[in-house]
Amino acid sequence: MKSRAAVAFAPGKPLEIVEIDVAPPKAGEVLVKITHSGVCHTDAFTLSGDDPEGLFPAVLGHEGGGIVMEVGEGVTTLKPGDHVIPLYTAECGKCKFCLSGKTNLCQAVRATQGKGVMPDGTTRFSYQGKPIYHYMGTSTFSEYTVVPDISLAKIDTHAPLDKVCLLGCGVTTGIGAVHNTAKVEPGATVAVFGLGGIGLAVIQGAVQAKAARIIGVDVNPDKFALAREMGATDCVNPKEHENPIQEVIVAMTDGGVDYSFECIGNVDVMRAALECCHKGWGESIIIGVAGAGKEIHTRPFQLVTGRVWRGSAFGGVKGRTQLPGMVQQAMRGEIKLDPFITHRLPLERINEAFDLMHEGKSIRTVIHFQEA
Amino acid sequence: MKSRAAVAFAPGKPLEIVEIDVAPPKAGEVLVKITHSGVCHTDAFTLSGDDPEGLFPAVLGHEGGGIVMEVGEGVTTLKPGDHVIPLYTAECGKCKFCLSGKTNLCQAVRATQGKGVMPDGTTRFSYQGKPIYHYMGTSTFSEYTVVPDISLAKIDTHAPLDKVCLLGCGVTTGIGAVHNTAKVEPGATVAVFGLGGIGLAVIQGAVQAKAARIIGVDVNPDKFALAREMGATDCVNPKEHENPIQEVIVAMTDGGVDYSFECIGNVDVMRAALECCHKGWGESIIIGVAGAGKEIHTRPFQLVTGRVWRGSAFGGVKGRTQLPGMVQQAMRGEIKLDPFITHRLPLERINEAFDLMHEGKSIRTVIHFQEA
Repeated sequence: MKSRAAVAFAPGKPLEIVEIDVAPPKAGEVLVKITHSGVCHTDAFTLSGDDPEGLFPAVLGHEGGGIVMEVGEGVTTLKPGDHVIPLYTAECGKCKFCLSGKTNLCQAVRATQGKGVMPDGTTRFSYQGKPIYHYMGTSTFSEYTVVPDISLAKIDTHAPLDKVCLLGCGVTTGIGAVHNTAKVEPGATVAVFGLGGIGLAVIQGAVQAKAARIIGVDVNPDKFALAREMGATDCVNPKEHENPIQEVIVAMTDGGVDYSFECIGNVDVMRAALECCHKGWGESIIIGVAGAGKEIHTRPFQLVTGRVWRGSAFGGVKGRTQLPGMVQQAMRGEIKLDPFITHRLPLERINEAFDLMHEGKSIRTVIHFQEA
Repeated sequence: MKSRAAVAFAPGKPLEIVEIDVAPPKAGEVLVKITHSGVCHTDAFTLSGDDPEGLFPAVLGHEGGGIVMEVGEGVTTLKPGDHVIPLYTAECGKCKFCLSGKTNLCQAVRATQGKGVMPDGTTRFSYQGKPIYHYMGTSTFSEYTVVPDISLAKIDTHAPLDKVCLLGCGVTTGIGAVHNTAKVEPGATVAVFGLGGIGLAVIQGAVQAKAARIIGVDVNPDKFALAREMGATDCVNPKEHENPIQEVIVAMTDGGVDYSFECIGNVDVMRAALECCHKGWGESIIIGVAGAGKEIHTRPFQLVTGRVWRGSAFGGVKGRTQLPGMVQQAMRGEIKLDPFITHRLPLERINEAFDLMHEGKSIRTVIHFQEA
């Protein structure tokens, strides 16, 4: 079938809005009509060409919401009309990882997903007869996309897709990292490095977890007002201090924070985030994605004296199991999505969303495929 | 009083056996007659001059056992005749750290201990009228030493001090890291980097924890026989493989180990130990002490995909609370100490213990202060 899509034909170039061909879902696959999609930094990272695993031409996008149109052979968990959020972290429920009880990193479709193809090794997208790659197993910048059934969370049909699509990546990543990865407990002290969408979601998670003190850190003080509104108790600008920010935070907190979160993808900030943790028990969670070849470092003494260095992907959330419940939370107002949505644009103007992001003017732009 | 002691007068020089003066214990302090002391790599590290915090002249030694001779004012928990193991990690039971329930790193005497003095800022040791520094709060290379009461674990008087002195450092560090820091569970797969005293203690801990597979790693295959005897199921020599050892272990274990332990103090090995852990949940514990200024590094992706980097000091063991029980375990044979003791020497020959260590010929040499 024909589908309007924003295609990344080459790194560093704007997306092109074209009509692509989408092949029907094969066994175990589902055709989804995407109604809305957030635009995330990871899309921009891949589009820039800096992502060493980036493939072109591709349909980017991984933070979407939509409606099932057709299911392939053997698909029993979904039917046309179901509302879904595509998952870049699948949940097969059967692999060593899913069965471990220790991680959300299902590996069932990992290898093919990383190669921009469906599990059978082929693509469902083409343009003028030439194949176009999938992206993160989701490709939500297309009006119609094909996704493995294990990569779809079935959600309440009453949930507003124009908002809950944000649970497909950023908001879930931040909130999940607080609850699933760090397991922040009531009364804890938390530092959040980077007050973009992920950082704000971490603040929201920390408020839910009843953290006593939530310190937002950003070099752009324009971000402090919203951070405070979301629940940050302190905001610190490293540029306003002569000492390294980790020392500033250690001094502010009588020894350091219980938990810190790096939401930027900068390896120097990752070090600061670890080193601002309290000796004996402080845990630092890396959420941001660093550039190719970048390495974290610190003195091992930091760990030997009790700090813990962790990372989190998709907030440790098992998409099919946990995301429906988070959608319910959003519907009850326990997860606030409105503050994240600073802009809305139709698909045709998607490149403006990237511009807004690069200029630091947006948290999330939500793209819609139909005229509002 | 007069006391025979091995004094480190200057970095890089052999210890000198001299008669020093030991002042009586002040308030909160205890005079201990050391009967036995192990010689540990950390003593050698400080003696070499590579330890940036090393102070000279000093009485080294931190793995001892002895008998209380006299208690200072206000000491109520110990009395003359009690058998004790000096603790380089005190346990005051009152500080923020002790009360956290999250760490054994009591800070009550940390600052002065690091400066080579007692909590009142002075030293109890002198030689020819000139002060001599304490070391790690223990200074067990002296027939008589003075230690804060919170730095002494009171143990069963029937316990053999010539063996249980090893619980003052190495054996406790290794076993404790398995149970307290990693919390290894039955069926787990474990890799142990470095098969010296600490590594063998980790193996012993992993056996206690009912680990299913215990992989010993060392560049010296002479160490494999004892490692196997202690419970290693596999032994690997990185020099016998072309690929990096982390890749070898990942291949051996269908994706990596559940827990790894670095027992050497080499930052490159620390990286390998992290990277041989299983994606999604593998945890690596740094036990070894790296040289001054050395840093660990890895790609943050290693953590974002679920590996955890931790460290452990004194095995996470709270000395006064937990060590008496470990002494009981040793008396019941549940902790085996004999395999660690490869040599015994009188104080006068203590420099030979350092030679044996440097030549890789000993696991532990236990020094005794009385003729056997």
